[in-house]
Order: sequence, then structure tokens, then C-alpha cells
Amino acid sequence: MRHFLAELEELQQRLLEMGGLVESSIWNSVLALSERSEAHALQVLTREARINQMEIEIDDFAVSLLALQQPMARDLRFLTAAIKINSDLERMGDLAVNIVQRALSLMRQPLVKPLIDIPQLARLAESMVHKSLDAFVRRDAELAREVLLSDDAVDDLRDAIYEELVNFMERDPSTVSRSLDLIFIARNLERIADHSTNIAEDVVFLVQGVDVRHHAETQH
Amino acid sequence: MRHFLAELEELQQRLLEMGGLVESSIWNSVLALSERSEAHALQVLTREARINQMEIEIDDFAVSLLALQQPMARDLRFLTAAIKINSDLERMGDLAVNIVQRALSLMRQPLVKPLIDIPQLARLAESMVHKSLDAFVRRDAELAREVLLSDDAVDDLRDAIYEELVNFMERDPSTVSRSLDLIFIARNLERIADHSTNIAEDVVFLVQGVDVRHHAETQH
Repeated sequence: MRHFLAELEELQQRLLEMGGLVESSIWNSVLALSERSEAHALQVLTREARINQMEIEIDDFAVSLLALQQPMARDLRFLTAAIKINSDLERMGDLAVNIVQRALSLMRQPLVKPLIDIPQLARLAESMVHKSLDAFVRRDAELAREVLLSDDAVDDLRDAIYEELVNFMERDPSTVSRSLDLIFIARNLERIADHSTNIAEDVVFLVQGVDVRHHAETQH
Repeated sequence: MRHFLAELEELQQRLLEMGGLVESSIWNSVLALSERSEAHALQVLTREARINQMEIEIDDFAVSLLALQQPMARDLRFLTAAIKINSDLERMGDLAVNIVQRALSLMRQPLVKPLIDIPQLARLAESMVHKSLDAFVRRDAELAREVLLSDDAVDDLRDAIYEELVNFMERDPSTVSRSLDLIFIARNLERIADHSTNIAEDVVFLVQGVDVRHHAETQH
């Protein structure tokens, strides 16, 4: 059997590989929307199976290390963080697929409005995902707390997008169906951002042993 | 130290207590909507903190058993199932809070339409939650598979609700904001149902050692 530390290192590597795949899925889902690109949409859809498979493998690996090695406090925190981060990443992958499904429907119709706020929300969510994974690798609680602080900006953008689209629908009911697609895309981006704050909370706990879950309930 | 089996039994008891709280939150959130009842809404909101606290305690308890006891195959499956079910239950509690927030806003406005489909979806989701927890207690893979089969009915109801409300908004734009609240309530109920299928999948794995995750990706 390999040394336990080598196993932990491999687990982190696999998790980062998974994170890379998920980040690129999120990125591609937004390009599918903004560029009206079927090619990017297809990439997200074909990658989903791989992400799901990786989640199962990483989960099994982490649980076996947890159960068979009787890890001490810090390693134990790392393993439980890994299990949770893995699950958050997989859900982000699902959310990217949801975005793509809406983007594919929108591609065939005229734009409701120029896309400005949604790509902005997408960039914010992407940077939160990236920072939270960075914070995990570097065990950087400061960076993790930065991610937690971005949550308010996400909520503000979501509210602005929501209100603007409700106005569109009320003024021109022919935009209802397309506006709804955009509202759901914004909602999926918001949920991606929420998952990145989950990861950031896990990092704070991992580094400092401080539990910041449920520090401030956010609306989903 | 107590016997390991007694610890596992206690873990199951706590999970069932949590399940009971969450079931009643779901139930109350739907009553808040259908009866326009602020009292029921308040119950859900005040219970949230208790559910969040229980999630943390159960999670810590399960992880400590996992890490300190080196459980064998079947107990290991039980512990990992418990950790996942705990997380699914907590998320259901959050979704009940989301429903209540929409219900509180709808209470102050006239009805868009008589509520028929949404209470039907709510009953279906509630019965899935209840069955999945029952299947867990009884280690009943048959019952768990029944929950998995309900997923199509949930999707059909969700689609019907969505289409009907889109029609309402298109015909009468003054209903946009209220219709959106109802669409999101239906979406939250659908996500509650999804979490109950997660639990059902965990039960199948627990009883039969068969992994049915990602058996058929559902749209969120």
C-alpha cells in the first residue's frame, strides 16, 4: 500500500482535474448562450458523463481513505472537505447542462435584449468557482473568505436581471417564454455561485477548523 | 465507549428526527401557499435554524463514526448513505423556506388561478420524501425503486404547470410576477422530489450494493 500522504495528494489531484472539467463546462455553457454556439453546447453535453463518472470514483476513493486509514484531525477535515467539494462540483456540472438546454432553445429565436447582465453574472460566478478551488489548493482561508463576500454582488445582479426581465414580459408578452429561459439561466448561474461559497466554507473549515456553514442563509 | 451498533442506531434515530422536521416544513410551506397562512409560513421560517443545526451535528457524528471505527462494508455503506441523506434533507428544508418566501409574497395579491396542479405536485413530492425515508428505515429497495419511478410523473406535472403559467403570462401580462412566483414554487417542489430520489438511490446502494446514481439524468 502506498503512503497515506501520497493517497491524499492523488485525491487532491483528481479533484482539481474534476474542477478543471467543471470550470470549462460552465465557461462553454455561457459561450453557447452568448455566441449562440451549438459546438460549445455539445461540448458541455458530451462532457457530462465524464464528470458524473469522476464524481463516483472520487467519492469512492475518499470514503475508502476515510474508513480504512483512521485519519487524524487535519487529514480527516481534508477528506470530508474533499467529499463535499466533489459533490458541489458535480452539481455545478449539472447546472451547466441546464444552462445549455436553455441556450439551445434560445439560439433558434431572436434575442429578447442584448445580453449584458447575464455574462457579467457568469464572469462573477466563474471567478468565484476558480477562486474557491485555488483557495482549496493553497489552503488559503483569506481567499476563501473573499469568495464568501462576493455573495452579495451575486444576489444584487440576480435581482437586477430578474426585475428587468419581468418588466420585459409585462410590456411585451411575446417575450415571456424567452425571458423565462434567461431568468432560469441567471438562476442556474446563481446556484453555481452558491456551490462555490459551499466550497469556500469547506476551505475555511479545513484551514482554520472554524465552521462557517449557515453563516448567512442565501436565497436559492 | 458505547457499542458501535448502538451508535449506528442513534445516528439513524437522529436522521429520522431530522426527516420528520423537514417533512413537516415541506407540508407547512404548501399550507402557507394554499391556505394563505402566515402562521404556517412562520413555522417553516423558525424551524430552519433547528434543521441547519441538526445537519451539522449529524454530519459530525457520522464522520466521527466513519473515521474512528473502521467500519466494514455494510456499515460503511450505511454511514456514507447517512451523510448524503442528511445533506439532502437539509437542502429540502432550504427549498421549503424558498417556497414560503414566494407564498408570503403571493398572500398579499389576488390568485392568478385556482391552485390545483401545484398542490398535486406537492402531494406527490411529499409522498416521495416519506417513502424514501421509509425505505431507508426498512432497508426496502423495492420501495426505494418506487420512488425512482415517480420521477416521470413529477416531470410531467412540472411541464404542465410551466406551460399553463406561460400561457397566463402571455395572455395577461399583469399576472407575470405572480405567475413567476408559482413557477418557482413548482420548481422548488420538483427539486424536493429530486432530493428524495437521491435518498432512494442511496437506499438501493445500501441494501443491494448497486450504484444507481446517474441512472438517468433529470432536468433540474
